[in-house]
Amino acid sequence: MKSYHADLGAGIDGIVLRERERPAPGPHQILVRVGAVSLNARELSILRGYYPLPIKPDVVLVSDGAGEVVAIGEGVTRTAVGDRVAAAIFPHWVDGPFSTENSAQLGGSLDGMLTEFALLPEDAAVPIPDHLSFEEAATLPCAAVTAWNALCGSVPLLPGQTVLTLGSGGVSVFALQLAKLFGARVIATTSDAEKSERLKALGADNVINYRTTPDWDQAVRDLTHGRGVDCVVEVGGAGTLEKSLRAAALEGHISLVGWLDKDVSTISIGAISATVVRMRRIAVGSRAQFIAMNRAIGLHRLKPVVDRVFPFSNAVDAFRYYRAGGGFGKVVITFDRAPSEPVDGPIKPDQRKGRAM
Amino acid sequence: MKSYHADLGAGIDGIVLRERERPAPGPHQILVRVGAVSLNARELSILRGYYPLPIKPDVVLVSDGAGEVVAIGEGVTRTAVGDRVAAAIFPHWVDGPFSTENSAQLGGSLDGMLTEFALLPEDAAVPIPDHLSFEEAATLPCAAVTAWNALCGSVPLLPGQTVLTLGSGGVSVFALQLAKLFGARVIATTSDAEKSERLKALGADNVINYRTTPDWDQAVRDLTHGRGVDCVVEVGGAGTLEKSLRAAALEGHISLVGWLDKDVSTISIGAISATVVRMRRIAVGSRAQFIAMNRAIGLHRLKPVVDRVFPFSNAVDAFRYYRAGGGFGKVVITFDRAPSEPVDGPIKPDQRKGRAM
Amino acid sequence: MKSYHADLGAGIDGIVLRERERPAPGPHQILVRVGAVSLNARELSILRGYYPLPIKPDVVLVSDGAGEVVAIGEGVTRTAVGDRVAAAIFPHWVDGPFSTENSAQLGGSLDGMLTEFALLPEDAAVPIPDHLSFEEAATLPCAAVTAWNALCGSVPLLPGQTVLTLGSGGVSVFALQLAKLFGARVIATTSDAEKSERLKALGADNVINYRTTPDWDQAVRDLTHGRGVDCVVEVGGAGTLEKSLRAAALEGHISLVGWLDKDVSTISIGAISATVVRMRRIAVGSRAQFIAMNRAIGLHRLKPVVDRVFPFSNAVDAFRYYRAGGGFGKVVITFDRAPSEPVDGPIKPDQRKGRAM
Amino acid sequence: MKSYHADLGAGIDGIVLRERERPAPGPHQILVRVGAVSLNARELSILRGYYPLPIKPDVVLVSDGAGEVVAIGEGVTRTAVGDRVAAAIFPHWVDGPFSTENSAQLGGSLDGMLTEFALLPEDAAVPIPDHLSFEEAATLPCAAVTAWNALCGSVPLLPGQTVLTLGSGGVSVFALQLAKLFGARVIATTSDAEKSERLKALGADNVINYRTTPDWDQAVRDLTHGRGVDCVVEVGGAGTLEKSLRAAALEGHISLVGWLDKDVSTISIGAISATVVRMRRIAVGSRAQFIAMNRAIGLHRLKPVVDRVFPFSNAVDAFRYYRAGGGFGKVVITFDRAPSEPVDGPIKPDQRKGRAM
Repeated sequence: MKSYHADLGAGIDGIVLRERERPAPGPHQILVRVGAVSLNARELSILRGYYPLPIKPDVVLVSDGAGEVVAIGEGVTRTAVGDRVAAAIFPHWVDGPFSTENSAQLGGSLDGMLTEFALLPEDAAVPIPDHLSFEEAATLPCAAVTAWNALCGSVPLLPGQTVLTLGSGGVSVFALQLAKLFGARVIATTSDAEKSERLKALGADNVINYRTTPDWDQAVRDLTHGRGVDCVVEVGGAGTLEKSLRAAALEGHISLVGWLDKDVSTISIGAISATVVRMRRIAVGSRAQFIAMNRAIGLHRLKPVVDRVFPFSNAVDAFRYYRAGGGFGKVVITFDRAPSEPVDGPIKPDQRKGRAM
Repeated sequence: MKSYHADLGAGIDGIVLRERERPAPGPHQILVRVGAVSLNARELSILRGYYPLPIKPDVVLVSDGAGEVVAIGEGVTRTAVGDRVAAAIFPHWVDGPFSTENSAQLGGSLDGMLTEFALLPEDAAVPIPDHLSFEEAATLPCAAVTAWNALCGSVPLLPGQTVLTLGSGGVSVFALQLAKLFGARVIATTSDAEKSERLKALGADNVINYRTTPDWDQAVRDLTHGRGVDCVVEVGGAGTLEKSLRAAALEGHISLVGWLDKDVSTISIGAISATVVRMRRIAVGSRAQFIAMNRAIGLHRLKPVVDRVFPFSNAVDAFRYYRAGGGFGKVVITFDRAPSEPVDGPIKPDQRKGRAM
Repeated sequence: MKSYHADLGAGIDGIVLRERERPAPGPHQILVRVGAVSLNARELSILRGYYPLPIKPDVVLVSDGAGEVVAIGEGVTRTAVGDRVAAAIFPHWVDGPFSTENSAQLGGSLDGMLTEFALLPEDAAVPIPDHLSFEEAATLPCAAVTAWNALCGSVPLLPGQTVLTLGSGGVSVFALQLAKLFGARVIATTSDAEKSERLKALGADNVINYRTTPDWDQAVRDLTHGRGVDCVVEVGGAGTLEKSLRAAALEGHISLVGWLDKDVSTISIGAISATVVRMRRIAVGSRAQFIAMNRAIGLHRLKPVVDRVFPFSNAVDAFRYYRAGGGFGKVVITFDRAPSEPVDGPIKPDQRKGRAM
Repeated sequence: MKSYHADLGAGIDGIVLRERERPAPGPHQILVRVGAVSLNARELSILRGYYPLPIKPDVVLVSDGAGEVVAIGEGVTRTAVGDRVAAAIFPHWVDGPFSTENSAQLGGSLDGMLTEFALLPEDAAVPIPDHLSFEEAATLPCAAVTAWNALCGSVPLLPGQTVLTLGSGGVSVFALQLAKLFGARVIATTSDAEKSERLKALGADNVINYRTTPDWDQAVRDLTHGRGVDCVVEVGGAGTLEKSLRAAALEGHISLVGWLDKDVSTISIGAISATVVRMRRIAVGSRAQFIAMNRAIGLHRLKPVVDRVFPFSNAVDAFRYYRAGGGFGKVVITFDRAPSEPVDGPIKPDQRKGRAM
């Protein structure tokens, strides 16, 4: 079977395709024929050699994937052959808080999903909603679970509350879509008129163009009659955090997501001390959160937003496309079909801000 | 100004209309020209003399009402003349848990809202959503806030979870409507085919006829693949609690609402010990919960279900109609217009079960 | 190696000692040389054939035990040979709520600890505090974790709050000892003057003799200036629940523990409807709760109360002694030493109330 | 009656003593004969003109005070003449989260307690524990309630968990004392050997000298076997926050307290992104938290640490002494007796770091 491995620190050029023998599941293990995977910022951090957690040498890349269980080992009780499953990025994080005991992760300290057949601990398998293809389900483990955790992992969002999302990356689009399932109002930001329309089509009640409205934090307060928002899904780090703090209501919640790069930026202590807010740094979420989220996605037949699909054979192009940035929703690599559109012409990363490697 | 007072323990026949001078608000008080009130089971308990909390002699009846602020006293800052407000049933229960310090209640230890002009503590006034008439807003203080508290007062309901509601009384219909704003699935019960259709029209995902399906608890488990429901809004007391316990999921929540009558029934201790659930007895909710709920109702333009509207002059008929039971949604008394339909012919309480006085 | 097995439904007379070969740990398994076990009411329910969860035929008895890890299987990372550990009664309940996925239990659907060597899933092993002997640590898994869960599993107990414990069984004595670590005030009940003194010596602020003060619920209210207690660890079922409800403060918490027998008793619905309390049925607790509790026990060098220790060879006497009831603290069976006192003379179960089999 | 007022922005030199007529309480007001007040950093910020919330012109200074109720207005039910009470700094913050509705504060937008007789809203009065003098009780409203909120306002601290406190200011010393009531382990920092002994005498399990151990964050991790602490009461702002972040356990809580000055410092975004922690900015706490804390203080007869007591006539000296910093515990101004020690010689603020005005 074929898998893409990483030469850590070498960037996308360090990705290599290797042939290995298909493994057989041992006790409490399962073997999944992978249908699709999706990419997250962590993949680029790992390739750059910047990731804050330990990475296995020559690791099989990519945390997020979905597929079909094709074999189970002794003692496996929660999953059967034929089940359609996604992999939880932290297979041992069953429930409760994140800890060093449960921080082993797929495509990190453990081999990942960019392989034809993935050998996983039984607990890694989470059933996927019936209405989702593998390409769609593969978008969930990292970005959607992070968004879910941001919305309800500490104090759950209530109907009628207001959420602020930033931009149109994977976590932000899921945060918008999921926040609507909670009955919340969503204010989104973007710098692009077309994306603004897409955000509104996904349910955003208001969209602010942060380029034409540089004081978008004030615009958020105006839209909330001066109160500020109850919840911010903050994915921008130093570039946005001070404004996010000013956009939050008294006792509002700010989830701090991403920011995995070597970042020497700073924020003003005064921006924090002028508030009465809660900030929570999030590490994706537990298997229990993934299962709870899937109940919501299944009930509402929510469809993840897939930006573009690449075939397994062109997986490296998918990484290049993702690194270039500027998409809307998730970048997927499929094992089963041709990409939804050809990757033609060189991608010009210099035209996309902030993702160059 | 005119008000309906109660001769406690004398039932509906003890209701008397009195003329008093219109009061002027003192410091931290407001005067509200009442637009409409709605009735709750507590009114009947009070009239019967069974209510568990102290009642003021010759009390002005009815906790729930909405209207317009027409005068404010010294030091009032949260409300202005002209504001459209509902009254919080426990005016001093601002936030946090219920306590003896905040248990004074309108239409109970304090005068209520079945009066042309109500003199209220400033904190009693809660702004009402713009899209609601006084008749609609008057349905909220007791039944809707109780339903809201049942759904999120302890551990908030999440999208994708399942709620069980019982019948089509005021709290149950609000619990159904509000649970849909939380993104939950709702299973409702009724014994009536027409009501079943109305419950579905309001969003119930499944409706079980508890008469034709006496083992409705098992039907609920079947509808949830054996898991049971995450939340029960239990309004039936001894008649339903054992089945509600069996219908609840492991670690599910059961909110215990109502049951205000002299009740000598019992439930089996074994029905509790066979579960791993949480039960919470609810006393309506705080002003903060009322305000949070109104944000949700306003955002979603949710419309309360009004069963029937009576004019102030025929208020006693409203009590008789409500006591007879069998309606769907809330019974309202308005100050401003004729009833939506004539009250013709004697109401036959003997034909309606369980509400005879 | 020797183990005690159960002939289910045959009571204590159905206990048999069998010799089996010592197993070797497979992947993610560990082998523990058991040092001591302790008994809980569940053991008697299982022997009687009344237990509400499935029991493995010919099960090795007893959920609670502690010992030393003597071998580990492939892939075991959390535990090393030589570690002193206790077994978590639900080895798969790592954290979060109880569920069907994590309800397999030692001495129930899985073999238990009344054996010289126990083969356990890796997750079952919880490190024990250094200051505890195996006899002491063996008392923790069921009774102490249940008490811990009762005190902080939902809304944590705060210093200055008041807890009510009932009697001097295993859970109640741990609830008293642990509640003092939370800085709470403890009111305990007993019917025995000598036990009253022991409860006070363990930190009880007040002890009520429920025999001489049959209205002990009123006595509890008097001791709390009419407020009632913030938390009840309710182990008495139908015999005490109505009074516990009356002893609880508004918004107080009542943890419902035990009551595993075939119980046809009832409680009055009116006793519930007259309150505004939360009741929570508890199924011991998770591995995470066990670990958190051990941190508290270790920091404060809390010593469990061991009522009496029997040698492994006389294990059946331990069951008889425990069934007879009337002890104070936990009954332990040790593998390592003679009992602390001889078991001389027949135990007279008819002198001990409520535990006859 | 005499009161000290502030000429805002003029610093301590702007404090003036004025004579006014003693007011009479109106409806829902009480009059308190003040026994003592205590000083907090907010007082210095207000005098400097830097405070982030609105300040009443010519405000009577100081939020924290305790005394005896000498008169009550119409409708007052919670307090009686003769009651010994402290004032809640936010009199309208009864319970629940902080909000613009409840942010009026004593010695800020409302007149404060540095007066012979304080006219207060009824809700401002919180009964004080019997074992405390007015001088001791006057230390509680701001510093102790902030510490209590830091320890249990979000997720309550549990016995066996570890708390980190910084230095020996008012909040930090209360955090240490209160954390011991929660059964927690406390690691404290200081730069002074004598203070180290005093911190240990108050219950600190470990004290780190941050001057001789500049990598005190690493020392904290070493003392917790690499885990880090569960809770940090962070009072140092930019000077300590990065280290506090590194000293916190995964999913640990950091309460952000104080930092009220014009602060242009920054912290590294990387210091946040390298963690999985929760940070919460705290604005003292609610009346309900004050009452709950007093139950704990009363049960355990906890004694606040009073650094020094000044007479009302020398109140300005108290401000100077407090501004100079370097004390241990709270600075108190009493109405009833001479200071515990003379204020002799000029205070040299240049010798004390970080508090010069």
